[in-house]
Amino acid sequence: MRATVFHGPGDVRVEEVPDAALREPTDVVVRVTHACICGSDLWPYRGELLIYGEHGRTGHEFMGVVEDVGAEVRTLRRGDRVIAPFAFSDGVCEFCSGGLHTSCVQGGYWGAANDGGQGEAVRVPWADGTLVRLPEEVDLTDTRLVTAIATLTDVMCTGHHAAKSAGVFPGATAVVVGDGAVGLCGVLAANRLGAERVIVMGRHDDRLAVARTFGATDEVRERGAEGVERVRELTGGGAVCVLECVGTVQATETAIAACRPGGNVGHVGVPPQPISLMDVYNRNITLRGGVAPARAYQPELLADVLAGVIDPSPVLDMTVSLDEVPAGYAAMDERRAIKALVTVA
Amino acid sequence: MRATVFHGPGDVRVEEVPDAALREPTDVVVRVTHACICGSDLWPYRGELLIYGEHGRTGHEFMGVVEDVGAEVRTLRRGDRVIAPFAFSDGVCEFCSGGLHTSCVQGGYWGAANDGGQGEAVRVPWADGTLVRLPEEVDLTDTRLVTAIATLTDVMCTGHHAAKSAGVFPGATAVVVGDGAVGLCGVLAANRLGAERVIVMGRHDDRLAVARTFGATDEVRERGAEGVERVRELTGGGAVCVLECVGTVQATETAIAACRPGGNVGHVGVPPQPISLMDVYNRNITLRGGVAPARAYQPELLADVLAGVIDPSPVLDMTVSLDEVPAGYAAMDERRAIKALVTVA
Repeated sequence: MRATVFHGPGDVRVEEVPDAALREPTDVVVRVTHACICGSDLWPYRGELLIYGEHGRTGHEFMGVVEDVGAEVRTLRRGDRVIAPFAFSDGVCEFCSGGLHTSCVQGGYWGAANDGGQGEAVRVPWADGTLVRLPEEVDLTDTRLVTAIATLTDVMCTGHHAAKSAGVFPGATAVVVGDGAVGLCGVLAANRLGAERVIVMGRHDDRLAVARTFGATDEVRERGAEGVERVRELTGGGAVCVLECVGTVQATETAIAACRPGGNVGHVGVPPQPISLMDVYNRNITLRGGVAPARAYQPELLADVLAGVIDPSPVLDMTVSLDEVPAGYAAMDERRAIKALVTVA
Repeated sequence: MRATVFHGPGDVRVEEVPDAALREPTDVVVRVTHACICGSDLWPYRGELLIYGEHGRTGHEFMGVVEDVGAEVRTLRRGDRVIAPFAFSDGVCEFCSGGLHTSCVQGGYWGAANDGGQGEAVRVPWADGTLVRLPEEVDLTDTRLVTAIATLTDVMCTGHHAAKSAGVFPGATAVVVGDGAVGLCGVLAANRLGAERVIVMGRHDDRLAVARTFGATDEVRERGAEGVERVRELTGGGAVCVLECVGTVQATETAIAACRPGGNVGHVGVPPQPISLMDVYNRNITLRGGVAPARAYQPELLADVLAGVIDPSPVLDMTVSLDEVPAGYAAMDERRAIKALVTVA
């Protein structure tokens, strides 16, 4: 089959790889219909963090159709349409039961030595625990709907995790640091959780336009200390709920500084360098979050997508074929696209 | 009057200073009966963090008797016996109302340019908001009781803040990193909040003995990676509630590593250098805490001290007179004492 392989910074290639196949009786094989390119796929592409190893399979956001079913799989059948979260998980351990599927004791991540999502098919471990089946009435010829559903494999769940971790509540004022795909989904998630005011920090006209359609009420285009000053003016001293959706040292420090004493910074990006906890300590800011347990959130977010309550599809503003995946990476790297959808089959 | 003044690392002196006096109508002057030396008083003493300025008054833990009362003070009278928290606060602002008195919009800290607690008297700003009056029946000739009450000016409240921030709940397993005075109070606080198992990380026989009387069920004497390994063995993978009571980079990293995925690190020490959030991110550890809002906790902890529910007095294992304050610093610096009580009047 064909799949995307990371060869080194700036070098991803779509090439022939061994076919995805059942290995354990709890596996299924999913024929991928749609995948996405993630902001974190750009880390190895930019030579920052080699999440797919030195030379490994890429992609961790995909949906598709069940093709082969292991003997011990109980809830899935050939032909089921499914979405995957960006980590696999058994669904029954202490952590899965508690909603933290990314810490599953038998779990792991797609890509590298496992099959990656940016290919024709994926072996899915612990299929009963990992996959979420789409209701039969969902019309997958509806491009907008499919695009919205595709965001649930990672980015919309990650934005939601930022909002949950920031403790967004009905009537809250929330600040979202970052206008990338995760930040935009954070705006939508904060709005969905009832935030009355959502201040987005970013500086790209096209993305801020999406933020407004997602419920942003204010925008702050300044960065660093200036941006913090502006947020403090708008909020009378900082917001109780701040979503950190970038993952750099500067963005994390901005999120902390924009937070009101005693408030929460929900973070879903990981800063590559250490950060000072002095401001956190002096003002009792809570840092909460991390890698999003997408599987925990997919059922409720899928229900809202299908009911038309939320439509995250605008974050996927570019569509490429599997062969065009390298062009998708390049477009995102050069900020010509917010995020790319890959139509595989 | 006489008071302690910081002159430089290793150099604190008890000397004549201007008398404490009313300045604002919301002030009172407290004649100090007892003060304490705090672990954080050792920061400037060791040349680490000059919290009292280059040359300033020291001490932020004191109790005493109201001597002078400003015209607008409503709830205190001359002769009232009071305890102070280690920060003053107006008691009415948004943050005080929310229990975060250390972020009071009109608040501040003792010492440096303000009067310090390690002296004969202190001007107390916002006296109605700042001070907690002791009930008239409290017998201040009872040395053990006075010692227990003196811990409420900071250290016991700080240990409690660590336990609250770590989310300790009835039946919880808690890990306390550090066997200093704050760590010991953290053990007592975790026990008071219902923890079933309290694992203390430390290596001093005398302090671990106190920890056992405070409710520690297990002790881990190893440090760093070895200590983390031992905690993980004892807890089957880390504790949900971890209290960081040291404030170094190593202790903070140990606390994070000893925490179970999705758990909470309650931190009340501040690491002087930046720390990596990678482990926090990968395992969704919440970092919560900071400088303790002692004023918020004093009423409930005082009630429990007076009722005999808790007795934190053993953390004050040395008593000095005001003139002997420098000897108290030296004893704590050399770990000959856990913490020193200063009897002033």
